[in-house]
Amino acid sequence: MANPTAAMLVIGDEILSGRTRDSNMHYLAGELTKNGIDLKQVRVVSDDRDAIIDATRALSESHDVVFTSGGIGPTHDDITAECIAAAFGVTIDVRDDARKILEDHYEKSGLELNAPRLRMARIPEGASLIDNPVSRAPGFTLGNVHVMAGVPQVFQAMVASVLPTLTGGAPLLSQSLQVFRGEGDIAETLSEFAERYSDLSIGCYPFQKDGAFGANIVIRGQDGTRVDTAMTQLSRVLLG
Amino acid sequence: MANPTAAMLVIGDEILSGRTRDSNMHYLAGELTKNGIDLKQVRVVSDDRDAIIDATRALSESHDVVFTSGGIGPTHDDITAECIAAAFGVTIDVRDDARKILEDHYEKSGLELNAPRLRMARIPEGASLIDNPVSRAPGFTLGNVHVMAGVPQVFQAMVASVLPTLTGGAPLLSQSLQVFRGEGDIAETLSEFAERYSDLSIGCYPFQKDGAFGANIVIRGQDGTRVDTAMTQLSRVLLG
Repeated sequence: MANPTAAMLVIGDEILSGRTRDSNMHYLAGELTKNGIDLKQVRVVSDDRDAIIDATRALSESHDVVFTSGGIGPTHDDITAECIAAAFGVTIDVRDDARKILEDHYEKSGLELNAPRLRMARIPEGASLIDNPVSRAPGFTLGNVHVMAGVPQVFQAMVASVLPTLTGGAPLLSQSLQVFRGEGDIAETLSEFAERYSDLSIGCYPFQKDGAFGANIVIRGQDGTRVDTAMTQLSRVLLG
Repeated sequence: MANPTAAMLVIGDEILSGRTRDSNMHYLAGELTKNGIDLKQVRVVSDDRDAIIDATRALSESHDVVFTSGGIGPTHDDITAECIAAAFGVTIDVRDDARKILEDHYEKSGLELNAPRLRMARIPEGASLIDNPVSRAPGFTLGNVHVMAGVPQVFQAMVASVLPTLTGGAPLLSQSLQVFRGEGDIAETLSEFAERYSDLSIGCYPFQKDGAFGANIVIRGQDGTRVDTAMTQLSRVLLG
């Protein structure tokens, strides 16, 4: 049975300008792989209404589940929530359950729940809330789209809140082998193995270290015994 | 005058499985910003023929220039070159100029130019070569798409080969201010500034450090004097 498919939408000018290096993609990719969900595509778009709406629709229609990161804070450039609502054609407004979470939080911290902060209680019609144990302001799930914060600590906490609610497939198992030979030397062998073990995925990732070329060969599959067998045979051929 | 727009296509299962953390996106974003080219979108797709072709077409049609990263090595999972050819509806075959580069290189290194290595001389009809001073196997430019290697050292060298051939706009200048206040405290001020300086882009990027919340405020624009003025006024308001 095929694993569920996932896509990610990263929202933020700061990534596309090179100011910030995104870390949420790498984190989510690892978590999904562990949970047997295949991340098929990631898109990074700027804080632009049309770009966010178009990408949300396209990814939501072609994948089982979508995760977004960024743009749900209190400032004027945080437009993700209203764009997700627009992508699904529903209204958005401050909702009582989300407002209550913020009221409790700001009362405890002695801060004012002012208009910008209250924006974080705007939830599209029909969405359910995603718990945010770090800074309280909730994410939300609308349709198959999970809308989460961009700050890595908050993003990771929200992923932890969402993952148990998803049905994953068999986790992908992998083994890797590092060889200090050029890719061109081992390509024929790898090609033979890819044909012989067509139920497994065999990838070759070249690197350059201190002027020498090498490659990490990764064999992935859902059947641990098959991965073992293929890697044992491959090691024998390549390492002699 | 608006700056040229760019998109990037990152190709590779290893990124989407979480095995490798991509660094090319962050590198390219920084280089494009310095050169006055606006990176508008990034897509990451797996080593899948349809996914690569669809993304290439979509990005090429909607941006002035596209950069791809990954999948042009000698192994069976390197399918980028043939997918780019298919996206543009042209043929692909080993080409004499590319073969000559590889012949010279492997002769010098005493290695055999075997069938897998010769795959790296397959260049779509009508493409021009991109110089690869690191490991010789060239990238190529077809239409508005620049096809480059995934290994960061090679990718960066190829970007350096391509950038001087592009016409950029005015580079984006930026100034940033770090404040140790919650986003909610400063959101109203930022919103006022965003309206007053509508020719500039004002972004707010929250962080959490040692339990305290803060934000980096970034003002971007092509007119350095305007950016200066806005930042001076903003600092006065926020820092007292």
